[in-house]
Amino acid sequence: MGDRYANFANSGMGRGVVKRLGLPDPPRLRRYQPGDPLTNGPVLLGAADGGRLAGPVGKLLEAAGVAVTETAGEGDKYAALVFDATGITDSTGLRALYDFFHPVARSGKTSGRVVVLGTPPESAASPREATAQRALEGLTRSIGKEFGRGITSQLVYVETGGETAVESTLRFLLSGRSAYVSGQVIRVGGGSAPAPADWDQPLAGKTALVTGAARGIGAAIARVLARDGAEVIALDVPGAGDALAAVANDVRGRALQLDLTAPDAPARLADRLTGLDIIVHNAGITRDKTIARMDESRWDSVLDVNLSSQERINDLLLERGLINAGGRIVGVASIAGIAGNRGQTNYATSKAGVIGLVESMAPVLAKRGITINAVAPGFIETAMTAKMPLFLREAGRRMNSLSQGGLPVDVAETISWFASPASATISGNVVRVCGQSLLGA
Amino acid sequence: MGDRYANFANSGMGRGVVKRLGLPDPPRLRRYQPGDPLTNGPVLLGAADGGRLAGPVGKLLEAAGVAVTETAGEGDKYAALVFDATGITDSTGLRALYDFFHPVARSGKTSGRVVVLGTPPESAASPREATAQRALEGLTRSIGKEFGRGITSQLVYVETGGETAVESTLRFLLSGRSAYVSGQVIRVGGGSAPAPADWDQPLAGKTALVTGAARGIGAAIARVLARDGAEVIALDVPGAGDALAAVANDVRGRALQLDLTAPDAPARLADRLTGLDIIVHNAGITRDKTIARMDESRWDSVLDVNLSSQERINDLLLERGLINAGGRIVGVASIAGIAGNRGQTNYATSKAGVIGLVESMAPVLAKRGITINAVAPGFIETAMTAKMPLFLREAGRRMNSLSQGGLPVDVAETISWFASPASATISGNVVRVCGQSLLGA
Repeated sequence: MGDRYANFANSGMGRGVVKRLGLPDPPRLRRYQPGDPLTNGPVLLGAADGGRLAGPVGKLLEAAGVAVTETAGEGDKYAALVFDATGITDSTGLRALYDFFHPVARSGKTSGRVVVLGTPPESAASPREATAQRALEGLTRSIGKEFGRGITSQLVYVETGGETAVESTLRFLLSGRSAYVSGQVIRVGGGSAPAPADWDQPLAGKTALVTGAARGIGAAIARVLARDGAEVIALDVPGAGDALAAVANDVRGRALQLDLTAPDAPARLADRLTGLDIIVHNAGITRDKTIARMDESRWDSVLDVNLSSQERINDLLLERGLINAGGRIVGVASIAGIAGNRGQTNYATSKAGVIGLVESMAPVLAKRGITINAVAPGFIETAMTAKMPLFLREAGRRMNSLSQGGLPVDVAETISWFASPASATISGNVVRVCGQSLLGA
Repeated sequence: MGDRYANFANSGMGRGVVKRLGLPDPPRLRRYQPGDPLTNGPVLLGAADGGRLAGPVGKLLEAAGVAVTETAGEGDKYAALVFDATGITDSTGLRALYDFFHPVARSGKTSGRVVVLGTPPESAASPREATAQRALEGLTRSIGKEFGRGITSQLVYVETGGETAVESTLRFLLSGRSAYVSGQVIRVGGGSAPAPADWDQPLAGKTALVTGAARGIGAAIARVLARDGAEVIALDVPGAGDALAAVANDVRGRALQLDLTAPDAPARLADRLTGLDIIVHNAGITRDKTIARMDESRWDSVLDVNLSSQERINDLLLERGLINAGGRIVGVASIAGIAGNRGQTNYATSKAGVIGLVESMAPVLAKRGITINAVAPGFIETAMTAKMPLFLREAGRRMNSLSQGGLPVDVAETISWFASPASATISGNVVRVCGQSLLGA
C-alpha cells in the first residue's frame, strides 16, 4: 500500500527521470516526530499596518523557541511565511499581501508553511473590512496551488480576544503534524485556552474514546492520541477482536468490543464509562452503488453507522454527563460529503450530515464548555485505497497540491490538534486533510 | 470557439464511436427559448411526511401549466423529480430520500432536473433536524454526478414563509434557463415576492446597467436582460467603442463609455443615471502570473477592476439613492475565487472578495429592499477560453458532470433569475454556473 511512484521520484535516478519528463514530483513531506523542534528553520513574520496579531504571535513563537524575523534577508530560506492581515480594512489594503509575498515567494523551504491570519468576515466592523478579509481566501488557496515542494498554505481567522488562543493552531500548522493539510480556512474563537504543561504531551491526563480503532485511520488515531499523552479506549465491532486487542495493547489502553448500531449500544457504552474528555467518531463504512442499483440495506447501514448512531451516542453520553467539561467531540467527514460522489449517495449524505452535526451542535455544546469539530479526509493511503483500480488510485493520489496521498497519521494529527485542551476556542470547524485536493464544491 | 468534440459526439456517426470507445458523451443541453413551456414533460413530485412545501409547490407548478404527478408510473419519463424534504427532522428520516429516488433514478429525461427542497439548517428547530437538512447536500451533489444525460441536481433551502417566493427559483431550475447550473445549494428567504405580469417578460419596466458589456459574457447578459424585458445600459471602456455600440443597438439600449477605475468614475456614472433597478458588475480582467513573477501593476489593476471599483460604485450609487427600492445588485465571481488557482493570486483574491461583498452587503441592503447575489462561472466557451492550450481547454470542458463547457448565455440566464422582481427574497447567494465542475474547495 505504499506510493511506489513517490518513492521512485525521490530516488537518485528517479529525480532525473521525473524532471526530464515533466512528471508529477511529489516531495517527501516533513512529518512530526516527538522531540522535533517546532519548525525546521526561521519564520518570517509580516503584518499589514494596524494588525493586532503579529505582536502576540511573534512573542508566542519566540517563547516556543522559534527564530522569528521581520525582515527578509537576500537568499534566506524560511520554514514559514506568516502574515498578519488583520490590519486590512478595505480591498485597496490587500496590496499589503502582494508586498509581503511577492519578494519571498521562492524563499520557502521544502515542506514549508504559509499562514495568513485574518479577522472573521462575520465579525468585521464594516462591509468593506468583511469583503477584504473574505478575499484572503483567494490568496491562500492560490498560493497552496502555486508554491509546490510540499509547502502548505492556510488562512486562520482569529476572533478578537483569541490572540493567545491561536497558539495550538499555529503549533499544529507550523509543525510536521499538518504535513497533509493545505488550502484550509480555520476559525479560532475569542477567549483564552489553557496552555498544556508540556506541548509534546498536550493530552496528558485525558481519556479518549476512539471508535473504529482496530484498523487503518482509527488505529492511527488511537496511536497518536496515546503518543500525545491520552489514555485511550479503543472501540470496534466484536468481529475485530484480535486487531483491536493489538491496537489497545500497543497504546497501553483499553479495548472495547461493541456494535454501535445495536439499539442498546449507547446505554451499554455509557455503562462502561466513567467520564470522557475526548470522543472520536471514526467508525464508518462504505457500501457503494449508484442509487438506481442500491438496495435499501446499503442505504440504511451506511446512514446508521456513519451518522445516526453517532447522534444517539452523543446525546446519551451528554444526557448522562459522561462527557467532561472541556470535552472534545471530533467527527470524521469526507470530501465526498462536501463535493458528492458518483456511487456514494448514501455515504455522501451521511458525511454531509456529519458536517451538519458539527455545525448545529457547536453552539449548543459551547454552553457546556465542549467543542465539536470534524476532519474531512481526501485520498489517504490505506488498505481500502490500495484496492482501488490503478488509474483511479493514481488520479486520487496526484490530483492535489502535494501530488501524493496522505497517511492515516495525517488525519490523526489533525484530530489530536482539535482534541488539545489548548484548542478550547476552536469549535464548529471542518478541516480537510487532503493535500488541497482539486476536488470540491 | 465551438466545442467540436461535442458536435461530433452528437452526430450520427459520432454517437457510435463515442459509445464504443467509452469516450465522454456530452449531451446536447435543452436551453430556453422564449415561448418554451416551463418543462418538456411531467414533473414527479414527492415529499417526506410532514413536508410544508409539496402542497404550495404542486399548486404553483400546475398554475404554470406543468403536469404534476405524485405517483411514478411504470416506464414513465419525467422532466423533473422534485422532492420536498422539509418533513425530515432526524437523520433516520433521510430514508425517505432513498424511497423516492431509488425507484425513479432512471426515469429522468435528457436535460432533466432533480430539485430537493429543504429547510435551512440554521433555521431548523433542533440540532437533529439541522443535521438531517444539512445532509441533503450530500445527496443532491452525488445525484448530479451520477445521473448523467444533462440532468442537473440542486438543493433549495426555503425559509418558513417562503413557500410561494420559491416560484422564481423553481421556474429557473426546471426550465432550460439553468441548463449549465448543477450541484448548487440555493437559499430562498421567507416573505413574499411579487409575481410578474408575464413570466416571459419578468424584467419589463426595469432599467439595468451591465458593465463590461461589449463582448463575451457581458454582451450575453445585456441580451438576456433585454430579452426578458429590461431597458439596458451597456457600459464598457472607451476603447470598446464599436463593439459596445453594436451590443447597445442590438438590445435597443444605451451605450455608456467609461473607465470604471478612474477616480471620478463613480461620480461621472452617477451623474448620467436617474435610477437603476438592476446593476450587474460583470467587468473583470485577468493578468495571470505566479506571485513570484507578478509585477505590482498586475496585482493592482486586477484588484481595482474586479473588486475595489465595484465597491466605490455601489457605495456612491447607494449614497445618492440611485439604486431603486427593489433593486438588484449582481456580481460575477469565479471558481478561482472559491478554489484558488495557480497563477491567479490576484484574480482569485479579487473574486473571493466579490463573494465577501455579497455576503457582507446582503444584510445591509436588505433594510433598503435591495438584494445582492453573485454568479461564479466555471469553464465558459468564450474568445478567451478558445485561446487556451488544447489540453487545458479539453480538461476544463470535460471535468464536470455535463462533460462540456457552458455558454455565455448560461451565466446571463442565472443573472436574470437573480434580477427578477420575483426573486425578492433571494439575497447573499453565490451560485456556480459550472456544470458541477469537479474543481472546488
